[in-house]
Amino acid sequence: MSPRRSGGLAGPAVDLAADDRLADGLDADAFRAAFRNHAAGVAVITADAGDGPVALTATSVFSVSATPPLLVFSISALSSAAPTIARAGSVVVHLLDADQVELGRLCATSGVDRFADRDRWERLPSGEPVFRDAATRIRGTVVNRLEAGTSTLVVVHATHATSTAGAHAGPLVYHNRTWHALGEGSRI
Amino acid sequence: MSPRRSGGLAGPAVDLAADDRLADGLDADAFRAAFRNHAAGVAVITADAGDGPVALTATSVFSVSATPPLLVFSISALSSAAPTIARAGSVVVHLLDADQVELGRLCATSGVDRFADRDRWERLPSGEPVFRDAATRIRGTVVNRLEAGTSTLVVVHATHATSTAGAHAGPLVYHNRTWHALGEGSRI
Repeated sequence: MSPRRSGGLAGPAVDLAADDRLADGLDADAFRAAFRNHAAGVAVITADAGDGPVALTATSVFSVSATPPLLVFSISALSSAAPTIARAGSVVVHLLDADQVELGRLCATSGVDRFADRDRWERLPSGEPVFRDAATRIRGTVVNRLEAGTSTLVVVHATHATSTAGAHAGPLVYHNRTWHALGEGSRI
Repeated sequence: MSPRRSGGLAGPAVDLAADDRLADGLDADAFRAAFRNHAAGVAVITADAGDGPVALTATSVFSVSATPPLLVFSISALSSAAPTIARAGSVVVHLLDADQVELGRLCATSGVDRFADRDRWERLPSGEPVFRDAATRIRGTVVNRLEAGTSTLVVVHATHATSTAGAHAGPLVYHNRTWHALGEGSRI
């Protein structure tokens, strides 16, 4: 990050729109720095477009509408799962509890076979791979995609869900390369 | 929630796609129940489309691309800020630290003037209202909108940012109607 840019981010003064040097948009480092303190719930997304199961850990899942039941997530073009997600007609979104951090780590680790442990997952009757130990599993059909820079926003219409969330642990949260568990101790 | 629906959500068995009764999509209650254990970072979004400042608390902000620097959020059509956000050419996204929970509460409370305290906010040179005490403030232009059920996805190209995030507290997190602070105690 250049001194000019870090200076724009460092201070408490409001100088957001005063710096014409940034008129074409923040550089990537400054943008990442601004989002570094943003926390997010953790999900694992799975799909199979006909050539084998894929899974990725995502911190970009949120619900956008209850009627109809729609959720959205984003996937980077750099993700190994991106080509499959780009073609898949349906996905399973697993929302993780804190005691499922290992599943979150597994699906965030590149170069490993995320489906090597055959006991850990099965297939739905409709064909999608699903991890057994995720707290909440939502199956849905992809109803829209929107290109956004180097990522794609995927809009999913939820058709089925099952959940044991909160039975043993609070939700899993990711922040600045660390994993957190919400509970009474974190409550404000 | 009907017994049939709660039964589909309650058990540990994977029966997501076996229930044809849900073929047209989850009902709203079941969908909300599935997302109840999903946590999220907290943001306040402000804008002014020419007829006065608006602000809303959102748990639906994430970064989708660093090059170009794009973020997305969703806004419900029911939000009082929705008509302004629908017309605004630019917004400010404030990412909140845990010590800014009062600002998050203020902008989540309906029927109050979120700009009554004139010392709490100012205007950027480009006109957008900005709250002084938010940890991270990102100003950007709206580059795309996507209708998704009862909400609108808004894609924002970030042009400027300033941050003091993490200086005093960890990020603010929202989960199932409670506010949480991340810190060493919540770390896994």
